[in-house]
Amino acid sequence: MTEIAILGYGTVGSGVYEVLKTNRDSIDKNANDEIRIKYVLDLRDFPGDSVQEVIVHDFDVILNDDDIKVIAEVMGGVEPAYTFVKSALLRGKSVVTSNKELVAKHGAELLSIAKEKNINFLFEASVGGGIPIIRPLNQSLTADEIYEITGILNGTTNYMLTKMTKDGLDYDEILKDAQDKGYAERNPAADVEGFDTCRKIAILVSLAVGKQVDFEDIYTEGITNIGKDDIEYVKKIGKSIKLLATSKIDGGKVWARVSPVIIGEENPLSMVNDVFNAILVKGNVIGDVMFYGKGAGKLPTASAVVADIVDAVKHLGRNIMTSWSTEKQNIIDIDNVEVSKFIRVEYNDKEKAVFAVKKIFGVSKIIELDSISSEFAFISNADVEKAINEQIDDLLNSEAVLNIPNTIRVENYSNPT
Amino acid sequence: MTEIAILGYGTVGSGVYEVLKTNRDSIDKNANDEIRIKYVLDLRDFPGDSVQEVIVHDFDVILNDDDIKVIAEVMGGVEPAYTFVKSALLRGKSVVTSNKELVAKHGAELLSIAKEKNINFLFEASVGGGIPIIRPLNQSLTADEIYEITGILNGTTNYMLTKMTKDGLDYDEILKDAQDKGYAERNPAADVEGFDTCRKIAILVSLAVGKQVDFEDIYTEGITNIGKDDIEYVKKIGKSIKLLATSKIDGGKVWARVSPVIIGEENPLSMVNDVFNAILVKGNVIGDVMFYGKGAGKLPTASAVVADIVDAVKHLGRNIMTSWSTEKQNIIDIDNVEVSKFIRVEYNDKEKAVFAVKKIFGVSKIIELDSISSEFAFISNADVEKAINEQIDDLLNSEAVLNIPNTIRVENYSNPT
Repeated sequence: MTEIAILGYGTVGSGVYEVLKTNRDSIDKNANDEIRIKYVLDLRDFPGDSVQEVIVHDFDVILNDDDIKVIAEVMGGVEPAYTFVKSALLRGKSVVTSNKELVAKHGAELLSIAKEKNINFLFEASVGGGIPIIRPLNQSLTADEIYEITGILNGTTNYMLTKMTKDGLDYDEILKDAQDKGYAERNPAADVEGFDTCRKIAILVSLAVGKQVDFEDIYTEGITNIGKDDIEYVKKIGKSIKLLATSKIDGGKVWARVSPVIIGEENPLSMVNDVFNAILVKGNVIGDVMFYGKGAGKLPTASAVVADIVDAVKHLGRNIMTSWSTEKQNIIDIDNVEVSKFIRVEYNDKEKAVFAVKKIFGVSKIIELDSISSEFAFISNADVEKAINEQIDDLLNSEAVLNIPNTIRVENYSNPT
Repeated sequence: MTEIAILGYGTVGSGVYEVLKTNRDSIDKNANDEIRIKYVLDLRDFPGDSVQEVIVHDFDVILNDDDIKVIAEVMGGVEPAYTFVKSALLRGKSVVTSNKELVAKHGAELLSIAKEKNINFLFEASVGGGIPIIRPLNQSLTADEIYEITGILNGTTNYMLTKMTKDGLDYDEILKDAQDKGYAERNPAADVEGFDTCRKIAILVSLAVGKQVDFEDIYTEGITNIGKDDIEYVKKIGKSIKLLATSKIDGGKVWARVSPVIIGEENPLSMVNDVFNAILVKGNVIGDVMFYGKGAGKLPTASAVVADIVDAVKHLGRNIMTSWSTEKQNIIDIDNVEVSKFIRVEYNDKEKAVFAVKKIFGVSKIIELDSISSEFAFISNADVEKAINEQIDDLLNSEAVLNIPNTIRVENYSNPT
């Protein structure tokens, strides 16, 4: 028998508790051991709930109990999670976590403590909810040199973009709908501004390159500037907008970016709709491989946490995770990364504005919508972002151009000039 | 340093050799050991090729060399692979293989020898080429009770069906195209008759239920009866035809089937086109999770073989795979499995034929194509297959019905009557 503790009885914590009870027989069989929940740490009491028997309010009870071999941290946030997890690892207890802030910020240090102590710090649930991605990156794709990881890593924003595309609603209406459905928080910033996605791609890239990628270094843009007109344009050209976390790895050179991107049908991520997440990994041997599933929610996340508990129990006293070093990985400024942009142009003289686009960008193909007057859009050729932005400034200086209502990055577009 | 041998220098074997050379540094880092190819077994010589230095023609050289700790079997076919692999495992050498025939037929026995000897028998490459699926099933989805596995497991037939859908060509033309491109063998039976897919789903279900599923027990139907008219009908209703391997697990009750199935856009497998494969797994906690990538080919398959070599090297003397027992898993006869069918009706009197369909199937909605006269199609309500087949016999007995040109199973269709 192995005794474990769960830190936090919120959405994920109660899911973990429930799954360990419901699937007890098959889980014990997979772990080749009996897993017993001895403590659940929460500030609250839950009278009338079976969990009350194991509720404790003081982390030290868990820390000082030598029978506890594995701890599941599912509180979220950097503190006090970091203090709790670090002290638990230092005491020789394996820790599994769903906490992306914690892993993105302190992953390298916590992994190194686990390695030193010959125990485990596992975090499958921190990226992609239930989707197996950390373990495949760590154990399955070991023959490959990974050169790209691109993901739809946030279910809330993917739901919103899908719904905007289907229903033609505008951003504010969709946000309200997502909040009413419980998919978006009352304060939606972490999702819609891309912060959540940013932490997740930082974790994946750190794992792929073996060095610490600071999430603060990753250019991050959310979906708050995407409106129904943008969606209309993109539908017209048979493409879709996704909030993508993208990273490319070329030897020691690494860049990463979170932003809305226009992608075509040929990209398998274009098929990922609603609250689903997916991670597309490209390796120099395997080619493209994609992992798809529910990226959030009580049970999918609990599935990954419990799978990590099983792995931790199976590997007591044996470190199984590849760690990444605390050495900082430099990230190339996206100014120097090549990109195409979809650019909307509001004009007072169409002919002159089209001429200006042709002159500055070398592009003559424009896209127009019946629903918007005095405006067209076009897609630039690929160039480094800095150069494209300078061209946009030039365009804004043309007399015929009144405004650039929006620009959105475009993947892999070879422009027919 | 760990010394290994490769059995077979065909497509996959040469891929494994090449990948171990090309990605040597990263692979050794992932294995935390230096992996060195000491022997490659092949009947042929390869003068002028660097592999010639390590070519041997006699398996006993490898078997009797105590320095060889890991063997990659990539010859294919049951014999002599089975004899070689079994004797290697009995000598305490771990074996990794891409050989689906071998694993489907003798997996239980070979896994049990590996377990007893505290070594490993790994076979990630036997299903889905490079796509990680065996390891995720074994190690990532351990919190879940798996109740369904459905996959597109054969790239050749998926390419053919995709191409038929895009180009409107008929089966024979497409087969010739696939053969010309090297996607299909001159004798295409293993692919187009579904035999390859059948062995792969047998492996996945055996792993999921922990008992031996004999592939001979799985109902298997290929794509040879799918013509361009079928494709036209299915396009008209906004769906697609895929060769699916499906299995459902409900406690002790298990069924499995390989056949063309009509699926809708809501099924993520509908997005899997060309030579790509995907496996959709459903668990009672995680919900739907899908693994997508290239299911065949020299390098993707080599990626999985080499990842298994890395895992075997990392776990010398420690068995890591869940095994399945040699106890036979009974499979429910598909006669007793519920299904809907798409049914084409050639008539001499349309009104009477429609009336017969309404009377026998309770369905009044029919689908017609401009390109086919004296014919319509409909989709039956769900019932056990035996009952549907009896209804089809009844329909054939109606005077107004001349022929039933084809029937195809339909997934999850609730018929509007």
